Amino acid sequence: MVEVAVMGYGVVGTGVVQVLAQHAEGLSHRAHEGIHIKYILVRHDYPEPPMMGTFTRSFEQILNDPEIRIVVEVMGGLDPAYNYVRRCLAAGKSVVTSNKELVAAKGADLLQVAKDHNVNFLFEASVGGGIPIIRPMSQCLAANIVIGIAGILNGTTNYILTKMFQEGVSFQDALADAQRLGYAERDPSADIEGTDACRKICILTSLAYGKHVYPEQVHTEGITHITLADVEYAQKWGGVVKLIAEARRTDSGKVDVVVCPMFISGESQLANVDDVFNGIMVRGDITGDIVFYGKGAGKMPTASAVVADVIDCVKHLKARKYLYWADGSPDYVADYRETARQFFVRAHAQDTDAAYEQAVALFPGASRLYRKEADAKELAFVTSQIPEKDFDTALQHLKAVGVTIDNKIRIGDM
Amino acid sequence: MVEVAVMGYGVVGTGVVQVLAQHAEGLSHRAHEGIHIKYILVRHDYPEPPMMGTFTRSFEQILNDPEIRIVVEVMGGLDPAYNYVRRCLAAGKSVVTSNKELVAAKGADLLQVAKDHNVNFLFEASVGGGIPIIRPMSQCLAANIVIGIAGILNGTTNYILTKMFQEGVSFQDALADAQRLGYAERDPSADIEGTDACRKICILTSLAYGKHVYPEQVHTEGITHITLADVEYAQKWGGVVKLIAEARRTDSGKVDVVVCPMFISGESQLANVDDVFNGIMVRGDITGDIVFYGKGAGKMPTASAVVADVIDCVKHLKARKYLYWADGSPDYVADYRETARQFFVRAHAQDTDAAYEQAVALFPGASRLYRKEADAKELAFVTSQIPEKDFDTALQHLKAVGVTIDNKIRIGDM
Repeated sequence: MVEVAVMGYGVVGTGVVQVLAQHAEGLSHRAHEGIHIKYILVRHDYPEPPMMGTFTRSFEQILNDPEIRIVVEVMGGLDPAYNYVRRCLAAGKSVVTSNKELVAAKGADLLQVAKDHNVNFLFEASVGGGIPIIRPMSQCLAANIVIGIAGILNGTTNYILTKMFQEGVSFQDALADAQRLGYAERDPSADIEGTDACRKICILTSLAYGKHVYPEQVHTEGITHITLADVEYAQKWGGVVKLIAEARRTDSGKVDVVVCPMFISGESQLANVDDVFNGIMVRGDITGDIVFYGKGAGKMPTASAVVADVIDCVKHLKARKYLYWADGSPDYVADYRETARQFFVRAHAQDTDAAYEQAVALFPGASRLYRKEADAKELAFVTSQIPEKDFDTALQHLKAVGVTIDNKIRIGDM
Repeated sequence: MVEVAVMGYGVVGTGVVQVLAQHAEGLSHRAHEGIHIKYILVRHDYPEPPMMGTFTRSFEQILNDPEIRIVVEVMGGLDPAYNYVRRCLAAGKSVVTSNKELVAAKGADLLQVAKDHNVNFLFEASVGGGIPIIRPMSQCLAANIVIGIAGILNGTTNYILTKMFQEGVSFQDALADAQRLGYAERDPSADIEGTDACRKICILTSLAYGKHVYPEQVHTEGITHITLADVEYAQKWGGVVKLIAEARRTDSGKVDVVVCPMFISGESQLANVDDVFNGIMVRGDITGDIVFYGKGAGKMPTASAVVADVIDCVKHLKARKYLYWADGSPDYVADYRETARQFFVRAHAQDTDAAYEQAVALFPGASRLYRKEADAKELAFVTSQIPEKDFDTALQHLKAVGVTIDNKIRIGDM
């Protein structure tokens, strides 16, 4: 029997306890050993009958109990999660977490502590909820060099953008709808500002290239400035707007990582990833594109990923699984403004034909887009591929001749 | 340094040697130990310079060399692969294979031998080429009960069906095209008769439910009888025709497994899996639907999956990975004719309106489909859900009143 402690008893924590209880027999069979929850760390007392005896408010009790071999951290946040997890690892206990904020901010450090103490630190649930992605990336793609990763990693924003695209609902109404359905929190900023997707792409990029990328190194834009006009132009262009998190290796050995809304072609395998679903495309030098698709969040899918890691820990109590990346460095992430892309521009001007002539002069090869509801002053076009800093400079020139820029959206090539 | 033998030097074998050579440094880093190819088992001598010293025609040399810890079997077929693999496992060597015929026919036996001798028998490359599916299914879904699996598991037939659908090319022409491009073999029967997809769903089902399903237990139909008329009706109905391999658990504890062309809705995540791509949907009780998508075949993707397994073996030379299923039994696979489904029927009759009236009497809730090019005698309809044996009985009644049945195609619900 392997004794486990669960730290945190919120949405994911109750799910983890439930999965472990419901599937006890099958799980023991798979893990080749019984799994028993000895403690559940809570802030207050929970007098819930089936688990009554297991609640504790003392982290020290968990830390100092030599019977505890595996600790599940589902508290969220950095404080006290970071301190607790680090001390558990240093005490020779394996840790499983769903805490993407923790892994994105402290992954390299915690992996090093785990390595030093020959224990496991696993976090499959931190990206993609119940979609297996960490393990396939670290193991199955072992024989590939990862050329790039592109993903729709946040279900809330994908729900909102899908609603805008399919039903012509405004951003605000779609957000309200997501909140009503429980897909978005009362304070939705971590989702709609891109922070959540940013943490996830940091984890995937760190894993793919073996060196930590920190969230503050990643240029991150949310979807709050996306309007129905943009969505309609995306459709006219032959695609959709998605919040994309992407990473790729540059020729100079850096990584180019951004999180932002992008136009993507209707032909892309990510174009049909709708509603609260997530899709993650990994481009390997040998395998080509592999896409993982499924519900990226939710109490039970996340809990099932946590429990799968617990089972893996039980199987690897003696032989540590190899999962590791080194610490990052300030100059490791490339300047996103050096990257050449196509861009979509929505603007307005007194004389749109004249403005478009200026635009074509500044952006050779640009092509104009039209939509029915546009007023006479609206101008929209997509550019050819151009480094973002040159694009921004040219955009300034366009402003200088009296064109007001309403939005610019990057065009993805995945 | 871990010494490895590669048995077979055909398409996949040369790919494996190439990946191991090209990525030597990165692989050693990931495996934490160098990997060295000591032997390549061939039928004839290959005087190719870089690998010259490693060729051997003697299996016994490999078997009796205690330095060889891992054997890669990429010969294909059952004879002599089964004998060789079994003896290697019994000699305490781990085996990695891409041979789906071997795993589908002898998996339970070989997994038992591996277990008895505390070595690994891994076969990620046997299903889905470079798409990671065996490992995610066995590990990440450990905390799920698999409700069902549905997949497009054969790239050749998917290429043909895509070509028919998108370009209106006949089956024969699309097949010829696939052969010209090297997607189909000169003898394409294993692909177009469904045998290849059948082997793969046997492997996935055995893994998902822990008990071996043998290919001869699975009702298997290929795509040779699919015409452009069927493809056009699928489109009118709102979907596509795909060669689907599906498995699910029945209430009585059996498994229901079939391989056959199906109409699937355009809304399905499998509907957009086109060309030589594979898509595999796994429905978990907790995670919901998870889809894996990528190129399902090809020399290098398959080789990369083999090499990933080799690396995993190197990491697990001491602790065996848990991958196991028990032997099957004759009554384990349910009679597919008991399963209730919707069906598509294409027929012809002198008086199609009268025939359709008869059809509706026999299949309450049937709805008729039309297409432009149909001649006056053509009749097509889809039925409501009905057990297949009742459907077949009713179809006999329809024949008895003078209706000629040209095709029946199952309708999938994935």
